[in-house]
Amino acid sequence: MEFFTLAKERYSCRKFSDKPVEEEKLNKILEAGISAPTAKNAQPVKIWVIRNEKALEKVKALNPFKWMENVKVIIAVGGINEGAFVRPFDSRNFEDVDASIVATHIMLAIHDLGLGSTWVGLFDSPKLKEAFPDMKDYDLVALFPVGYPADDAEPSERHPVRKDKSELVKYI
Amino acid sequence: MEFFTLAKERYSCRKFSDKPVEEEKLNKILEAGISAPTAKNAQPVKIWVIRNEKALEKVKALNPFKWMENVKVIIAVGGINEGAFVRPFDSRNFEDVDASIVATHIMLAIHDLGLGSTWVGLFDSPKLKEAFPDMKDYDLVALFPVGYPADDAEPSERHPVRKDKSELVKYI
Repeated sequence: MEFFTLAKERYSCRKFSDKPVEEEKLNKILEAGISAPTAKNAQPVKIWVIRNEKALEKVKALNPFKWMENVKVIIAVGGINEGAFVRPFDSRNFEDVDASIVATHIMLAIHDLGLGSTWVGLFDSPKLKEAFPDMKDYDLVALFPVGYPADDAEPSERHPVRKDKSELVKYI
Repeated sequence: MEFFTLAKERYSCRKFSDKPVEEEKLNKILEAGISAPTAKNAQPVKIWVIRNEKALEKVKALNPFKWMENVKVIIAVGGINEGAFVRPFDSRNFEDVDASIVATHIMLAIHDLGLGSTWVGLFDSPKLKEAFPDMKDYDLVALFPVGYPADDAEPSERHPVRKDKSELVKYI
């Protein structure tokens, strides 16, 4: 899909059909994530594809959103301080920025492929790390439940109103 | 441009022609930034378009990269703690994530329009805030010098090698 159309049309989908996500599409999503740039190309990120039944149940139990019920793939994205670019002037570590760039690529790829998702930031990160010790040292910025949108996925979520341009943009 | 092509073809451009950036294209870039989702739609972000001569000189003086010399537009992106979504489970403030999503949209839009840029994270953030007090409370995650790529913009920067998929992706 053309980028500007994609950026405009993408919406937070919270209602999915039972149609499974094809392996080929999942791979394309992951490739889009991997192709995202990171500061100094450090790639201090990890992408977890959660899809075995037991793991999925664990994640869903920690995120009791009813709309996640029939999702069969959840992608988690995290950044790690170690190895990330640190800006010398203010010691700012860029793992969070890098993980978010990767996650944004993933978000856009999902929708480009006709699948639906929503960037979930509200989840019990400490408990998720307990359940999956591999995530322990990561700053978990996103969970993406992925699936095909249900026929009646709600359009009301399509276009949350943005602030006025004059509030967000300043010319100097 | 088709999203997957864009994600693959985009590269860090550090050599620009003198051709000015059209107002229409600049507006499209800003719209792409504004259309980016943020946690709880809080939009705790600001986009600065730096293009008056004095302001440009200030930024360039703080970022003495020779390749920025003939750039006439620099876009800065920052997030602010106040008003941003805070995850209750670990008190994580999402301003950094939100600013990075907006910046990623901006980065992709620039390249989609045939312009070039590179996400600059290495800049003297404290001094930039001194020069532009309006930025004081913001977490400055990106500077995008924007222009038309020079005919001989170096292709060596096109595809920094990514880590192997097996290192970045884990299936659970």
